[in-house]
Amino acid sequence: MLSNNKIKYLKSLYRKKNRLQENKIIIEGIRIINEAISKNAEVEHIWINEKNKSNKYLEKLIDTCKLNKISFTFESEIHIKSVSDTKNSQGVLALINIKEQYNSILKQFENRVIILDMISDPGNLGTIIRTCAWFGIDSLILTDNSADIFNPKCVRSGMGAHFYLKHFTYLGYDKIIAYLNSKKFTILRATLNAEKLDKNNFSDSWALILGSEAHGINPKLQIGQEISIPGKGNIESLNVSIACGIILNQLSN
Amino acid sequence: MLSNNKIKYLKSLYRKKNRLQENKIIIEGIRIINEAISKNAEVEHIWINEKNKSNKYLEKLIDTCKLNKISFTFESEIHIKSVSDTKNSQGVLALINIKEQYNSILKQFENRVIILDMISDPGNLGTIIRTCAWFGIDSLILTDNSADIFNPKCVRSGMGAHFYLKHFTYLGYDKIIAYLNSKKFTILRATLNAEKLDKNNFSDSWALILGSEAHGINPKLQIGQEISIPGKGNIESLNVSIACGIILNQLSN
Repeated sequence: MLSNNKIKYLKSLYRKKNRLQENKIIIEGIRIINEAISKNAEVEHIWINEKNKSNKYLEKLIDTCKLNKISFTFESEIHIKSVSDTKNSQGVLALINIKEQYNSILKQFENRVIILDMISDPGNLGTIIRTCAWFGIDSLILTDNSADIFNPKCVRSGMGAHFYLKHFTYLGYDKIIAYLNSKKFTILRATLNAEKLDKNNFSDSWALILGSEAHGINPKLQIGQEISIPGKGNIESLNVSIACGIILNQLSN
Repeated sequence: MLSNNKIKYLKSLYRKKNRLQENKIIIEGIRIINEAISKNAEVEHIWINEKNKSNKYLEKLIDTCKLNKISFTFESEIHIKSVSDTKNSQGVLALINIKEQYNSILKQFENRVIILDMISDPGNLGTIIRTCAWFGIDSLILTDNSADIFNPKCVRSGMGAHFYLKHFTYLGYDKIIAYLNSKKFTILRATLNAEKLDKNNFSDSWALILGSEAHGINPKLQIGQEISIPGKGNIESLNVSIACGIILNQLSN
């Protein structure tokens, strides 16, 4: 049973400082937990609302837990809700150890890298990670001033895509520039007033830099070639996750 | 000054029933209000937090109000906050009359129409409307069971794009099918396992049907040609607004 101390501990992981210290996160919902298990994330324990025991999706998840020797317990609704960070909890929570999940050794990053500059909205960030997973991109560099990818909102909007990421790191501008200069990537910067992407112009090794909607890309990352998504000029900007999806689709075709 | 009754009235507009009855909405934030004014929305009144008077963007907005003969008043922070629906209010609210803003006469809809089936997340819906504005699409049909486009969250994530929309309506499945059958559109349905879009196959008159991520497109809308966005199979689905952006970009090039 979830003790008060354990509840307190689990809830503490909603704070970035504690996540960083513990290297653990809480994830919620059947789909995200299934993705975590299928990508061999280190699931330490799963707590299930005893009232939902006979939900067929939860039954399937319980079978998966047994098969993968993942420990789980049934808990009272009140305990589950006291840990849950969502309004409409599906009644299932998992504690994940992320220490071994990700590689941050830059030189091992794949040759298709996304660089995000100051993306502060965790929902957008999660959607970007989900879009990367769709297109098979698993290397992500974020500037120091970006949102935490394990922010609960970001994990929710990622819909399990976090567990497809292999390489990610947070870096300052200088280090990003040094990294890019050390590689033979085609470097693309998504901005508002440039030419559209011409795929004939570069190789399959690329880095794509995306900035926030409010601030664009920091001048410190003025490197590589600008590209834009042609619009009808009706509105100031596209959502950054939409821009990411459109460019990745172009790069993948 | 905002009276208690007026505050109550304005707040009542956050409920769909009241919005529908009054044909009025509250919008918040400088950028969205600027978009509304620039697209000649009927702005009934603007309330500005007196503390923010000297913010340069608000000063500019005040000039715009004077130029366009839009009435505005300064209000105490406490009054603005009591009406505001956002955590970090920019201190400016506008009341918009939307009665004359939109056309729902189907036969006048443009020849590039987006049809949304049961999109229930207002944030996604707003991002779709914003993406449509970017690509110059101004006709939108939503199934009856979709979210309200004037839900405050939807308006926020639309970032002012709502005022670029010219034609929109909510319809049942039968009426949508009858409408599509009466037109010579190329009808596209975005699904998960079809061929990718081949632009040589159809004209510039099209309707694009997008379904929710959880439920896909209702079988009652089984019409036209399925198209998909090729992925690497790493994750179950793309966010619907991302799919919308990618397909609109393909259709626009």
